[in-house]
Amino acid sequence: MRNTFGNLYTLTTFGESHGAAVGGIVDGMPSGIFIDVDYIQREVDRRCPGQSIITTERKEADQVEFLSGIFEGKSTGAPICFVVRNTNQQSKDYDNISQLFRPSHADYTYYKKYGNYDYRGGGRASARITVARVVAGALAKIVLKTYNIDITAYTSQVGNIAIGKDYSQFDFTEIERNPVRCPDPMKAKDMEHLIRNVKKVGDTIGGVISCVIKGCPVGLGEPEFGKLQALLGSAMLTINAVKGFEYGEGFEGSSWRGSQQNDVFIMSNNKVSTITNHSGGIQGGISNGQDIFFRVAFKPVSTILMEQQTVTKQGEVVKVKVKGRHDPCVVPRAVPIVEAMAAMVILDAILYQQANVHKI
Amino acid sequence: MRNTFGNLYTLTTFGESHGAAVGGIVDGMPSGIFIDVDYIQREVDRRCPGQSIITTERKEADQVEFLSGIFEGKSTGAPICFVVRNTNQQSKDYDNISQLFRPSHADYTYYKKYGNYDYRGGGRASARITVARVVAGALAKIVLKTYNIDITAYTSQVGNIAIGKDYSQFDFTEIERNPVRCPDPMKAKDMEHLIRNVKKVGDTIGGVISCVIKGCPVGLGEPEFGKLQALLGSAMLTINAVKGFEYGEGFEGSSWRGSQQNDVFIMSNNKVSTITNHSGGIQGGISNGQDIFFRVAFKPVSTILMEQQTVTKQGEVVKVKVKGRHDPCVVPRAVPIVEAMAAMVILDAILYQQANVHKI
Amino acid sequence: MRNTFGNLYTLTTFGESHGAAVGGIVDGMPSGIFIDVDYIQREVDRRCPGQSIITTERKEADQVEFLSGIFEGKSTGAPICFVVRNTNQQSKDYDNISQLFRPSHADYTYYKKYGNYDYRGGGRASARITVARVVAGALAKIVLKTYNIDITAYTSQVGNIAIGKDYSQFDFTEIERNPVRCPDPMKAKDMEHLIRNVKKVGDTIGGVISCVIKGCPVGLGEPEFGKLQALLGSAMLTINAVKGFEYGEGFEGSSWRGSQQNDVFIMSNNKVSTITNHSGGIQGGISNGQDIFFRVAFKPVSTILMEQQTVTKQGEVVKVKVKGRHDPCVVPRAVPIVEAMAAMVILDAILYQQANVHKI
Amino acid sequence: MRNTFGNLYTLTTFGESHGAAVGGIVDGMPSGIFIDVDYIQREVDRRCPGQSIITTERKEADQVEFLSGIFEGKSTGAPICFVVRNTNQQSKDYDNISQLFRPSHADYTYYKKYGNYDYRGGGRASARITVARVVAGALAKIVLKTYNIDITAYTSQVGNIAIGKDYSQFDFTEIERNPVRCPDPMKAKDMEHLIRNVKKVGDTIGGVISCVIKGCPVGLGEPEFGKLQALLGSAMLTINAVKGFEYGEGFEGSSWRGSQQNDVFIMSNNKVSTITNHSGGIQGGISNGQDIFFRVAFKPVSTILMEQQTVTKQGEVVKVKVKGRHDPCVVPRAVPIVEAMAAMVILDAILYQQANVHKI
Repeated sequence: MRNTFGNLYTLTTFGESHGAAVGGIVDGMPSGIFIDVDYIQREVDRRCPGQSIITTERKEADQVEFLSGIFEGKSTGAPICFVVRNTNQQSKDYDNISQLFRPSHADYTYYKKYGNYDYRGGGRASARITVARVVAGALAKIVLKTYNIDITAYTSQVGNIAIGKDYSQFDFTEIERNPVRCPDPMKAKDMEHLIRNVKKVGDTIGGVISCVIKGCPVGLGEPEFGKLQALLGSAMLTINAVKGFEYGEGFEGSSWRGSQQNDVFIMSNNKVSTITNHSGGIQGGISNGQDIFFRVAFKPVSTILMEQQTVTKQGEVVKVKVKGRHDPCVVPRAVPIVEAMAAMVILDAILYQQANVHKI
Repeated sequence: MRNTFGNLYTLTTFGESHGAAVGGIVDGMPSGIFIDVDYIQREVDRRCPGQSIITTERKEADQVEFLSGIFEGKSTGAPICFVVRNTNQQSKDYDNISQLFRPSHADYTYYKKYGNYDYRGGGRASARITVARVVAGALAKIVLKTYNIDITAYTSQVGNIAIGKDYSQFDFTEIERNPVRCPDPMKAKDMEHLIRNVKKVGDTIGGVISCVIKGCPVGLGEPEFGKLQALLGSAMLTINAVKGFEYGEGFEGSSWRGSQQNDVFIMSNNKVSTITNHSGGIQGGISNGQDIFFRVAFKPVSTILMEQQTVTKQGEVVKVKVKGRHDPCVVPRAVPIVEAMAAMVILDAILYQQANVHKI
Repeated sequence: MRNTFGNLYTLTTFGESHGAAVGGIVDGMPSGIFIDVDYIQREVDRRCPGQSIITTERKEADQVEFLSGIFEGKSTGAPICFVVRNTNQQSKDYDNISQLFRPSHADYTYYKKYGNYDYRGGGRASARITVARVVAGALAKIVLKTYNIDITAYTSQVGNIAIGKDYSQFDFTEIERNPVRCPDPMKAKDMEHLIRNVKKVGDTIGGVISCVIKGCPVGLGEPEFGKLQALLGSAMLTINAVKGFEYGEGFEGSSWRGSQQNDVFIMSNNKVSTITNHSGGIQGGISNGQDIFFRVAFKPVSTILMEQQTVTKQGEVVKVKVKGRHDPCVVPRAVPIVEAMAAMVILDAILYQQANVHKI
Repeated sequence: MRNTFGNLYTLTTFGESHGAAVGGIVDGMPSGIFIDVDYIQREVDRRCPGQSIITTERKEADQVEFLSGIFEGKSTGAPICFVVRNTNQQSKDYDNISQLFRPSHADYTYYKKYGNYDYRGGGRASARITVARVVAGALAKIVLKTYNIDITAYTSQVGNIAIGKDYSQFDFTEIERNPVRCPDPMKAKDMEHLIRNVKKVGDTIGGVISCVIKGCPVGLGEPEFGKLQALLGSAMLTINAVKGFEYGEGFEGSSWRGSQQNDVFIMSNNKVSTITNHSGGIQGGISNGQDIFFRVAFKPVSTILMEQQTVTKQGEVVKVKVKGRHDPCVVPRAVPIVEAMAAMVILDAILYQQANVHKI
């Protein structure tokens, strides 16, 4: 259950990392939108493994096939089903772990919940299934472009190497120019260096992704349980390895005073605006027209290529050393996933807002 | 829209701070449960204003009246409606702000979204309406007790004064013995002192609430979009003034390595357990039987008793100094709200899990 | 669970016939709408018992109190909670049935499902709780008026006395002029006569309500599982005593041929229209701009004032003769309930349709 | 939107009749169930065109491919995606109708709602997409078998030829022995004869399907808006060409008296039972342990091979004569669809009921 995300723009996903395919169904796509299939494929490629030395060396084609909902190049309003076949599985890599629970993985909890688990690459719990989110997010982004809404995520921290929160200083076109997807090219080098070193010893490292949404109209988000920050936070916390979410000044702002954190309203070009944006673009759960800004914390990937102790299904204590090809740091590849989830949330909020409006 | 929380155990809330009443309807309450009305009232009293010098001096009776769903002292399985009348409103306090947008409040966003806003005490956006959550949470807690699940929240930071994450060192009975609800009595004094000082100058201060859930069975939470951390995070991010959520090692863990953060499985009393609990009791979105641990960041309350600049509905720039009785720090009173939301999430997850199980 | 109706315009109900109150919360009411409280009360009065000799003699004030969501006479977009206190309960009437299951009532199924049942007047299963639907429906009707959509239900059959399906021949202003709410005054007399005779012998009688919705735009309803007929049918089948739903030619049309039943498209005033309306205003699950027409079958009320055999909780076979004041025919009082449910469905569909539209 | 059916056991469908494929995703399948793929394919074959002279002559392989959720022959609890490729499309058949609206089809309403319509075989509005329902229903039936619940639908009327409601007289094994799926072999011959005659003249004919569910436990269905009859009715009314739903005595019972229709409770084998079953197995919206019985009315298929008048997109009045291969009577092939929808509703209700139960 609960493999569906969203309310009016929904994504239902399916698939396991070593099954036949992964994919999903998008429902609620507005009709009449030109679907740029090449753009969607490029978005998927951003998430692909094998992009560089700092990601996993697995090479997966990740070719998106659309099965429905598009007619003569445009969305029809009908559900869009898409499938990405799994082609590069090496299930043998997992033979030695079929009877044990890998530390900090979902093996144990799935086993207890369902009475089984697909030990081959994490099965349903694998980050591989997020490819469906990237496709659905790319479709949402295509719609958001018609509203002039733009979403940009980037790596803002790897291990202890971090860049500041003030994103106005960065050139976002820099993000895709380095393998860690950090807008600060100097820090990007340091981060890359750190990831290489971590990889050498078979270990992994965590990090933080920041995200900026520009162009949102005032009014997105629904009180009281549909607050925009709750929708965004929930979306981010469904991404594998995410351990935290904050928006605006977040945790740091907890030590501030109200007189410091309040955003003073001003008039700017005959519109209500704010001098500062400590609120992160959301007030009372509703977008206020300023940039939406949030940050997402990722733990280090649990799959390390080092010997660890664990227990088997039968309750035996054993040593395990996982084989296979894995990411030393999941953060760079998670950047398009953060954007995709944000895009789905914002589009869903827009559709809600359109429903809200009384036409008198 | 979206004034309903939950899926199988749901709360639908209503009310404004200066309307006739606040309250809600709980649907999905299991039948046959003895409803301890006094216990529920005590939980509501924990959230009440006027408890001490460091909270607002408004005194509100907050008397809960149950209208349905209870017959001969027990829940019937029918929806439980409850009402708390508003009795101590001083709407005149708000006359001077009826035409302007208070900085970092929801006035502006509500006005743009709905074409109106209830300027009297924040209306629907007031924290007052969270009383409904406390009632619904108390009902959930009564059910959770029958499952031996226990939820404890406490103030772990006020401004820059913080206590450590390792809660095993604390005596939780200490929490209700001091007005800030901090389990460390020495730090509690410091926090209280800070809040008093902030209040003296008409300012406010933020903080952090930590929460521990003990006794959860393995298996709560639904992949892929119903991950337990996403449900908890979403719940917390709907609470007024919350700016961040993290579980397990959270943001701090982003700088760790996998070899440090992985929780090694062991056998303990013939059960699978973990040596450490960096995961915060959740793996792959599903509870693993360890304590669930998370933290919630609160910004300083936006209502400060200092002069601020802002704009009016008509776009005029004006100065405003809010009157009325307000909390200098919302964190102590938010502790029962955090517990209430957590209780609803866990009960909902339990009902889901009961639905899951195939009875062969 | 499942005490909430609708998706974007929702009603959550509460209450038992002999509890403190019945009522509900409406969420999704568009903002800025003038709320004519007197009109809503009149709608509630139409459902009230004690209106005439052919309905139950119980007199209930059914005074609606609004607790939220209305400010300065207008809807704010916040949830509207309303309460109707129960004032005329004679619970003693039910003492003799507290241990047994009345034939064709919900006593037995509730008892098995919940381990209890409120034997006083049917408790949650009582038709009394439909008063909440009438209030929520009246609110929806107020909104629909701004779209020029008009909903009219009427009694079209009582026992074997029926009027034809072609409603164009009737004067709808006649409906509220007779106690059975039938637009044909002659047949109304016959129906009234039949109900009186049935009442005399302590028996009850069933009937049919027809409903016409005029002014719907083309496009309401969502394929594939949100077809407008499915939404209407589901709504009607939740009304107490309803046993069937059909739209357009319904069951009778099952014996027709396609060449008879197809509605030929024509141009009328430069708009696409149809010559006939066998479809009942819905094609492919979506409104086509013609009148929506459907019929709802009601069984005779189960509460008869005659001796019947039944069993007790303990499995004893006993005779029971129910006391109390009951309707010999529920159909006339159900007319406003049918209208109310239809109004909620149509408004919900409109909000969906507004969400659908892409604004390019 | 609204391409998802159900709450805890859900089906999300996709596909158009002349697109690449049709199919769906089932979420909420209990884990550990052996999936008999051959059984599912046989169910799909029951719906297939080309089965006999009285159905369309189109031959479609309708080969079901499963992409996920099954591991080592058993369900894993993860979503099950399945795809049926479209192989036998003759889109040229539809060239002459690409600019006009076929009478009583969804062409016009889709065009107005979405700004486009897929004129090739009805696109999304085609009955072809119900193949997804049959697959999801077959999966549900596999689970229901473990609860000893059995669902049987059959043709009970074609045109004016009908069999009685008392199904106890029929041998259900007869149903699959004749092409109309009627348990009365003599009437089946008459029905077949009628369909052949109707087909000869290029016309179509309607009918009724009855359905019996045996073995339901007491307690399925949720008051107040989740009444079992509302769930069943809604499910049936989403099937193409359905115009009515009734359960128990249905419309006919509207002319009865309460003393006739009430089902007297008795003890039978130490269990509460009823002498008659006029209620159709549901009382107060909840299953009472007796057989559930309902009937579904189908209109004659709108596609007739006769000349009809209609209008074009441009508002021109034209004559049209549809070509292609079509069913003269959709009822026989709809029998497995009715069963499938019923199976999904019942399984969903069971999962709800499992969630309900408090474990004290």
